[in-house]
This record gives sequence, C-alpha cells and structure tokens, in this order.
Amino acid sequence: MSPKITTELLKQLRQVMKSPKYVQEPVQAYIVPSGDAHQSEYIAPCDCRRAFISGFDGSAGTAIVTEQHAAMWTDGRYFLQAAHQMDNNWTLMKMGLKDTPTQEDWLVSVLPEGSKVGVDPFIIPADQWKRMSKALRSAGHDLVPVKENLIDTIWTDCPQRPCKPLITLDLSYTGVSWRDKIVALRSKMAERKVLWFVVTALDEVAWLFNLRGSDVEYNPVFFAYAIIGMNTIRLFIDGDRMMDPAVREHLQLDSTLEPEFKIQVLPYGSILSELQAVGAGLSPKEKVWLSDKASYALTEAIPKAYRYLTPYTPICIAKAVKNSSETEGMRRAHIKDAVALCELFNWLEKEVPKGTVTEIIAADKAEEFRSQQKDFVELSFATISSTGPNGAIIHYKPVPETNRTLSVNEIYLLDSGAQYKDGTTDVTRTMHFGTPSAYEKECFTYVLKGHIAVSAAIFPNGTKGHLLDSFARSALWDCGLDYLHGTGHGVGSFLNVHEGPCGISYKTFADEPLEAGMIVSDEPGYYEDGSFGIRIENVVLVIPAETKYNFKNRGSLTFEPLTLVPIQTKMIDVNLLTQKECNWVNDYHRTCREVIGAELERQGRHEALQWLIRETEPLGRVQ
Amino acid sequence: MSPKITTELLKQLRQVMKSPKYVQEPVQAYIVPSGDAHQSEYIAPCDCRRAFISGFDGSAGTAIVTEQHAAMWTDGRYFLQAAHQMDNNWTLMKMGLKDTPTQEDWLVSVLPEGSKVGVDPFIIPADQWKRMSKALRSAGHDLVPVKENLIDTIWTDCPQRPCKPLITLDLSYTGVSWRDKIVALRSKMAERKVLWFVVTALDEVAWLFNLRGSDVEYNPVFFAYAIIGMNTIRLFIDGDRMMDPAVREHLQLDSTLEPEFKIQVLPYGSILSELQAVGAGLSPKEKVWLSDKASYALTEAIPKAYRYLTPYTPICIAKAVKNSSETEGMRRAHIKDAVALCELFNWLEKEVPKGTVTEIIAADKAEEFRSQQKDFVELSFATISSTGPNGAIIHYKPVPETNRTLSVNEIYLLDSGAQYKDGTTDVTRTMHFGTPSAYEKECFTYVLKGHIAVSAAIFPNGTKGHLLDSFARSALWDCGLDYLHGTGHGVGSFLNVHEGPCGISYKTFADEPLEAGMIVSDEPGYYEDGSFGIRIENVVLVIPAETKYNFKNRGSLTFEPLTLVPIQTKMIDVNLLTQKECNWVNDYHRTCREVIGAELERQGRHEALQWLIRETEPLGRVQ
Repeated sequence: MSPKITTELLKQLRQVMKSPKYVQEPVQAYIVPSGDAHQSEYIAPCDCRRAFISGFDGSAGTAIVTEQHAAMWTDGRYFLQAAHQMDNNWTLMKMGLKDTPTQEDWLVSVLPEGSKVGVDPFIIPADQWKRMSKALRSAGHDLVPVKENLIDTIWTDCPQRPCKPLITLDLSYTGVSWRDKIVALRSKMAERKVLWFVVTALDEVAWLFNLRGSDVEYNPVFFAYAIIGMNTIRLFIDGDRMMDPAVREHLQLDSTLEPEFKIQVLPYGSILSELQAVGAGLSPKEKVWLSDKASYALTEAIPKAYRYLTPYTPICIAKAVKNSSETEGMRRAHIKDAVALCELFNWLEKEVPKGTVTEIIAADKAEEFRSQQKDFVELSFATISSTGPNGAIIHYKPVPETNRTLSVNEIYLLDSGAQYKDGTTDVTRTMHFGTPSAYEKECFTYVLKGHIAVSAAIFPNGTKGHLLDSFARSALWDCGLDYLHGTGHGVGSFLNVHEGPCGISYKTFADEPLEAGMIVSDEPGYYEDGSFGIRIENVVLVIPAETKYNFKNRGSLTFEPLTLVPIQTKMIDVNLLTQKECNWVNDYHRTCREVIGAELERQGRHEALQWLIRETEPLGRVQ
Repeated sequence: MSPKITTELLKQLRQVMKSPKYVQEPVQAYIVPSGDAHQSEYIAPCDCRRAFISGFDGSAGTAIVTEQHAAMWTDGRYFLQAAHQMDNNWTLMKMGLKDTPTQEDWLVSVLPEGSKVGVDPFIIPADQWKRMSKALRSAGHDLVPVKENLIDTIWTDCPQRPCKPLITLDLSYTGVSWRDKIVALRSKMAERKVLWFVVTALDEVAWLFNLRGSDVEYNPVFFAYAIIGMNTIRLFIDGDRMMDPAVREHLQLDSTLEPEFKIQVLPYGSILSELQAVGAGLSPKEKVWLSDKASYALTEAIPKAYRYLTPYTPICIAKAVKNSSETEGMRRAHIKDAVALCELFNWLEKEVPKGTVTEIIAADKAEEFRSQQKDFVELSFATISSTGPNGAIIHYKPVPETNRTLSVNEIYLLDSGAQYKDGTTDVTRTMHFGTPSAYEKECFTYVLKGHIAVSAAIFPNGTKGHLLDSFARSALWDCGLDYLHGTGHGVGSFLNVHEGPCGISYKTFADEPLEAGMIVSDEPGYYEDGSFGIRIENVVLVIPAETKYNFKNRGSLTFEPLTLVPIQTKMIDVNLLTQKECNWVNDYHRTCREVIGAELERQGRHEALQWLIRETEPLGRVQ
C-alpha cells in the first residue's frame, strides 16, 4: 500500500480556494468532511471527496487544507491505515489522544488573523456548523459556505452520481402503503403543529415511498429528497428511473388521485430552491420540521423562527417499529441467511484442515451461499472474515496484504450479513475448527453469558436500550474483562443494517425507548490484541413478555432471536453456565434445528442439515 | 391543613412589582423559584420565599405571579399537598402531565405584548436564566433581573439569615489541611489555565476550609462564598463567628503567613461587587472558573469571554473521593449509627405489639438513640418513618395528620440518618414485627437481590454509576415489578447527605466515573400503592476489586458496605436467592455481628446485642 501523491492536487485545491470563479472571497482554509449531503454512514464513490484529496479512504475522517498545511483527523481504528495511505503533505491528527488539537483549535493556531474557512454547506450537518462557526468567530475568523464543492472542481475523473433503477415493494413486504405512511406522517405533523416535513436521510425517503435502490453499496437506497406538506408531496430525484412503468404505477403518477396524494417529481438538485420558496412563503407560527442532522444548506433555507428540529424524525421512529409484514419478512430472510451459513460452516469444517481457505476465500464463499437464496440482493456490509490476531481488529476487512489462512489452531470470527428483498441480516459467529484452549473457551463463555443476559432480559415497556448494555458485560466484568464497543444497533427491514433511533450501548443517552416490533442486534465480544477476537451476534426482535405482575399494566418486553445459526458448543465451558443459561442455549439450538432444519430439508441441502443436527446437540451440564 | 390566605400578600407583591423604589420599570410577572443563592437542596427558613407567598412548602416548586394570575408549578410528589396548602388565588400547574404548559409557554399565553418578567438574579441558576430568557425574547418579552428580592420587601416578619457558630475540623477528621486543598485546587486551575475560581455551593466552601456550620437544617454548612485566585483567598462570610479564637486559629487569620495563604475575610453581601472587580480587571485569555449552576448574578459578573463553566467543579470532584481519614471517620459514624438502630429495632420489637408506637414516636426514638452516640450533631435529613400504605409514599415524613400506629400486621419502613462529627449516615431498613405474607416476602427478596447485585458488582475503573442502575432492577423486572426512583446518590463526609458528582441512576448520563474512595448509597425498593413500601439501603464505599484478569491493568472496582445493620431475614424468601446471594447475606451478617457486636458490648448495650445476634443468624438454604 503506497501513499497517494497529493502535491499537485493540493496545489490545485489551493488555487480554487482563491479563485473568484468559485469563492466570493478567497478562503484561507477548506474543510473536507467524510459524509454526503444526506449524512449517510455508507457513501457513493462520487462522495468520497476526502479519500480523493488525501488518499485516506477509511470510513471516518475530516481533512482540512490551508495555504500552508494539510491535516487529517481520524480515530484510533484508522491511525495506521491513514499513515500508510497519505503522503508527506499531510499531518495525521490522532483523535482521542491527549495532545491532539481539535479542528477548531488547530485552525485558530495556524490561520492568519481574520481568515475565512470554507466548507460545502450541503455536506456539513447544521449542528456541526454551529459549533465550528461559534469557535471560529470567537477567534476572529469566519466559517463561510462555499456553494460549489471545491474538490469537485478539481476532481476531473469524478465518478457520476449513481442513478440506478428502483425496486418497488408491494404491501406483502411493507405492510403499509406509501399513502398510509403519508397519512400517518401528516398526523404526526399536525400533532406538532408543523406544516412541512423535509425528508433528508436516504433510508427515510426509501421507507416512506416503499421504494429501494442501489445507489450506495450495501444500503438499498437511492439519491433523493422529499418535502411533505399537508396537501402536497414533492419528491426530488434524478434520472429516467421515474420513467419505469412499475415505478409510475407504484407511485400512481399517472392516475387521477386526490390532490393531497399527487406526487410532484422534481430534479434532485432543485431541493434547495424549492425549500427556500417554502421558507419564503411561511406565515408566523408556521413551522418546517427537519432532522437536526440535516445539512446546513437545507436548514438555513428555512428562517430560524420557522424551523422545528428534532434529533429523530417521525419517519425514523415509525421505521424502527416493524409491522407484521416486515417482521415476517425479516424472519424469512434470517432463515435463508442461516441456510447459507450452515452450508458455509459445513464447508469450512471440511476445507479448513486442508490449509487452503483464506479469510477472503471464506468471505467469498459466504457470499456465494447467500446469493443462492431467494430474493438475495447484495451484502448488507463488507464481510468481516478474520482469523487469529486479525479477529481482534474490530472493524477488520480482509485485503490481500492482511489475508490470513484459516487453520485448526486459531479462532475464526465471521461477521456478515445480506440484503434480501424481504429483510436485512447481520450475524456474527466465532468458530474453532480444531481444539480451543481453556482460556479461549472461558472468554467465549463469558461473551455468551452476556449475549444471553441481554437476549433473555425482561424489562418494562418504555425502557431505553442503553439501560441493558451492562447486562452484556456483567460476566466479563466479574473476571476483569470488557469490550470497547456498544452491544447493539437498530437494523432496517431491507434497509440500512445500522439505523436509529434505538440501540444498546453505554455510549448514548439519546436513544428512543424500546417497543415491541423494534429490531436490534445483540453482539457482545471480547478481543485479545495480537491473539484472537470473539463476538456472538444475533439480530433480535423486541416482543411483549409474560411476567407474573406485568409492571401494573405498563407491559413487559423481551427479545426473540431472529438469527437462527448454531453457536459453537465446542467453544462453551459448560461449567461456567447457570442452569438457566444452559437451558437458553438448548432451547435456542432446538429452534435452530427445527426451523432451519426444515428449510435445509426443503432445499435438499442434506450435508448442511447433518452439520446442523450435529451442531445443535443439547449441552450436557457437567455439574 | 387549611390553605394560606394570600390575597393581601399578592396585592402587596403586585404593588412592589410596579414600584419605582424596587424596579427600574414595572414587571408584569415575577418568578419565585424554590432555591437559595447557592442552589442548595435544603434551604434556610429565610429562603423559603415561595412557601411564604403561596403557602405551599414542598421541597420543589416555582411560583409565578402576574397582574392577573398566580400559578405554581410542582411535580407529582406534591400535587395533593400543594392543592391543600394554597388558596383560590393560585392555579396549580401539574408538571409531568401532558396538558400542563411550561412556565415559558404559560407566560407567553397570559402576558400583554412586550412584557417584562422579573426574577431575583441571585436565586436563578445561569442555565435556567438562559433557557427562559431565550423563550421569552423570541415571543417579544424580556426576562429582567430585579436586584432587590420583591418577596423580601413584603415579608415583614422574615426570619434572619442564620449565622450560627462554626465547627473547625482538624486533620484527624479531614485528612488534608485547607492549605493543601487550596494548593491542589490551584494546580487544577493551572491545568485548565484559569486564574480564578469562585466557590458558590455551601458544601464546597465548608469542605475547602475544613469548617462546618449549622445555618441549614440537616446540612452542616454555613452561608459563605469564596473566590480563590492563584495568590489570594477571599472568604465572604457574615457575623461575629470569625471572631471565634478557634476559627481564627484554624484559618491562621492572625499568623504571619505566605501571602498566597492569607485569607481575606469579607462581608457575605460583597461577593458581587468583588467578583465584578475581578471581572473588570481581566486581560484577554484570563479565565474565571464557575459552576454552570451558579446564579445568574454571579455568572454575569464575569464577561462572557472570560467565563469557564463546568457542570462539576474541581472541589465537587475532589470532595467526592474520600481520603483514608474521611473513610475511617465514615466507618466510625456507621458503627455508632448501627448501634443506635439495633437499640431502636430491639425496642420496636418489644413495643410495637403493644400498639402504642406511632411513626412519629418511632422516629423520635431513633433520634434519641442516635443522639446518645459520640460526636452526634443532628439528623442528616427528615426521618422517613412509615408503616403500611404510608411506606408507598416515597418521600413520606410523618406529621400528626398522617401519623399511623405501627402494628404486627404491616410492613414498617425506616429511612433515616445522622450527622456525626466524623461522618454522615443514611440507612433504610424494612421490617415486619409480625408475620409477613408470601407476597411481601417475595417483593422484599427481589429488592434484596437488586441490592446485592449492585453491592457485589465488579466493574472496570472509570465506569459511571448510571451503568449499574439496571443491575438493581433485574430481579424485579423478571417478575414485572419496578421502582420509580434512582438507585443511589453520593454521600458527603459530615456534609450533605446528597452530593454529586457520582450516583447510580437511570436518570442521568452526566455523572462522573466512579473511583475508589467515593461513597454512594445502594437503595433499590418496591412500592405497592395503598399497601406497603420496601426499600433496602446501605451506604457503600467504592474499593478496588480483585479480579482474575484485572481489565489489562485498567483496574477493577467494587463496593464495601459501610452500613452494618441487619437485614431482616424474616422478610427473605430463601428459595428465591442463589447460593451466591445467600452467601452474601450471611457474610454481611457475620460482619455486622462482629463489628457492631463488639461496639454494643463496649457500650454495655447487652439487650441490643442479643437482638443483633438473633437477627444475624445465618440463612439456611432450603433447596
């Protein structure tokens, strides 16, 4: 991996930073954030501007270029990678280390008095703008919006913004028509006394209209915005994909419709001017609802007095609570996904001892088995296929330089998932194809105890997920072990594999309360640097629980695993389990055998079925 | 309880709201918050201004008086009490109910255009001012500081501000001299590059100077402020108490001292002008450190650019970590406290069946036994002595109207504590003097399991207390039960019984990480409205734990109970305990018997000793 040579690019960028063609006044610094205009976690190649200018292509990082300097802020996951990928023009700012300055402090220390700092107002979220603008202003500088993205002006071979065909989802997948979703949204708007709602997140647009796309890898979304009024629907989307008869039919574009359900299709690029027009036409007390993570550009389009900003939009919250059609779809997707993984693990069990299976081969094989399943669309994220010490790198993705061969002497960790038309999966299993050491089994068993503690937890309706996080750690803590990531994230329904507003993590306090129908992951782990990684992850559905006293009718909740893939019993030290935990494992494996066994049988996958039966033998308690 | 007639008072208040003698311009509304100028939880009679104007004397509530209206905001604990204590001039605003307007919204709805809303700038915390001022401004009104407290101008028989003698604490109690505390504070100031620190909380002043007072009931504090510079110490305090030779000697007021330790004593009322002088003399980059909960008046004395505000001050954090002298003092205090409670419970066991013991008599008896102990100063809060249905009222305090007689048919809950010169106690025990029902035992045992889960928890150094809260609820949750309060609060060392910055509660995310030497309460409960209340509370010390793997040298923590009072085994359903929990109870009782037994013996309290021995018999596991 040799660094990208950026001398010429930086020279060009510094020129356009002074060019009256692009900036009203020269800017002395230009900020290049990671994101796209929708604050997406995964971005399209055309939005990888920070990677283009610096060479560093990790998922998180902010570049700032001044007349003299070029600096990159990233976190601990990426210190090594960024150092390898960037040339000497760049200074690496290691976030989280004590002596690393913040972007604001660094700017103040290097800029000449009264400087202008430029940023693309579409890429920077409003809250971030506010913070940085305030810090710069108090030091005598100015943060200024630069309309034309300066990277784009020098990125001659910038890939086109993707504009792939859309998939329409009918009621059997979505359970609710887009019209009914609009009705529900308008009723939420009426409750909060807002007249307009601006949909800026890509998964929210997709969910609202029951459409999917493939503009961004792993996330079945498409570039679009929407503005919903009490009587109008405006969808901002490019390309001839709206010419597709199936899409026109789905959105009833050519039907005679009540005017309040008539969708006006507008160019993607016209969102700002349309929103400005909305903003200009407001009377006092008329409000426009936006996510507080929407871009500065869109937020500014609405005069401050008319903005209604919330951390979670009504769509985000509605989307998180899956209806029965979505839940059933998720169940089907997880059954198919389990079939693929039974095939994979059966295959690995035979092939690993031969010493020919690398991490990349295993990941490809997993994708191959998944792609054989009905309604498979793509993977839901880059497969983490890691053996031995690579397993301790939490966000590892095998590349030729690091690719390791699986063996009977090392623990293998596979964190993978897929998009099916009926649901999204995300599962981690940790396997040993030889004989695990007592220490490896001990650690695995603590992680399993944590996984079970969350999965079997019973809690009152309205409990926030972060209150469950410590349950996952208690067994590890008792022995002085821990893991440095959250325990779970929300999962979309044939949508983003990571979604808000719920989750299970010690890191946040702003999650929304769990309610029946929400779907989250349960994935505690343990990582021994340089040796191995362990993680056990199921996707689980929040369901009503039966309790003796039912919280005085407040209602009880618990989780039901949607993921049905055996947990390797060879890795379990049964003596460390309580009888209750032992029963949980046996019950879980019985369900795996019944549900996945029937599907393997149906698909005629007899060898994998035999593997499943072997792997779901009940645990015998030793004491 | 008949309501206070406030017609005349409100008339007077409305007059002074327009009187040029007190206000520059008439104010159309006047806010009367609960607190004092130090944001104290417990306040002195002269600060009970809201109670004076309204009649409502609960611990939380804000009154707002306009030309036409008088309204009182309070929370669910006080709806009934406020309704009883206030006359028809007042509208009760029930906080937490859906239709109750916020103070800001209500003001906006009732005020004529362009109104002025007055408030005493010493009583309102800066953050609250900011929020309210913003809301009013955006509706065209103004929040204005009214220097003279308008309630005080009409409160003709207002009690004097207390000015009681001070207690000096020597090194055997405090472990660290006030000089060394000043040195440590200045080093924290240097770290943060601030030149001045303003001490506004009463317990912080008391802790810093190793002085105690009795200006406020239950809290051994005195009215004072301090401003600490890098070379100066200014103490703002009234009365002739600084003439006391012991105090002069303690503070070395008459000694030849290095100038940076020379204490300048100034009148309490001169804090504002002195702070304004400090503010006026600052050069760029010179900062003044204040709590973000300090009053608006003091915060405003420092120009905005020079303020350094934090939620927890360095004193608050240092005070929370007890040194070995303080810890030893707390141990001694808890031993004495346990002796008093053994006497009490032994006495109750004999007297309750006679039907002559009321809640008030029991509370008084508890105080009597405590007052017999060495270095007893006063109670640390109003005793919660409650039997039967009264136990379900979480903040109950017996008064003649509610006073119930203890019986062999009801559960009795006693939450009480004291201030001793060597430490502060706070303990809750739930007892039955007859035969508890199976359901009562079941609930008690779940609460006990929660208590043990927290007390025995092992967790990595740096864990915040709120992450432990769910451990206390897990056993209750499993059966569909819960309690609607936090699990623990910080406890001062011969200081306030509630102190920051640590605690164990689902409600906060802003607590500081737990570290060895911190002291918190562990007090889960269960409350059955109209029937009974159960709570089991120990004060526990955070101590290093021994674990197998010690979090890779990050270090492990756990708790050691300081409270050593038997937990009534009659209330325990042993079948619901695990072996580990059973062992915990037996170990705890063994320690109670050894430590408290020895002290009872030493004090010649033989009957109470026999009671202790009976109550600490080991649990036999049934299965």
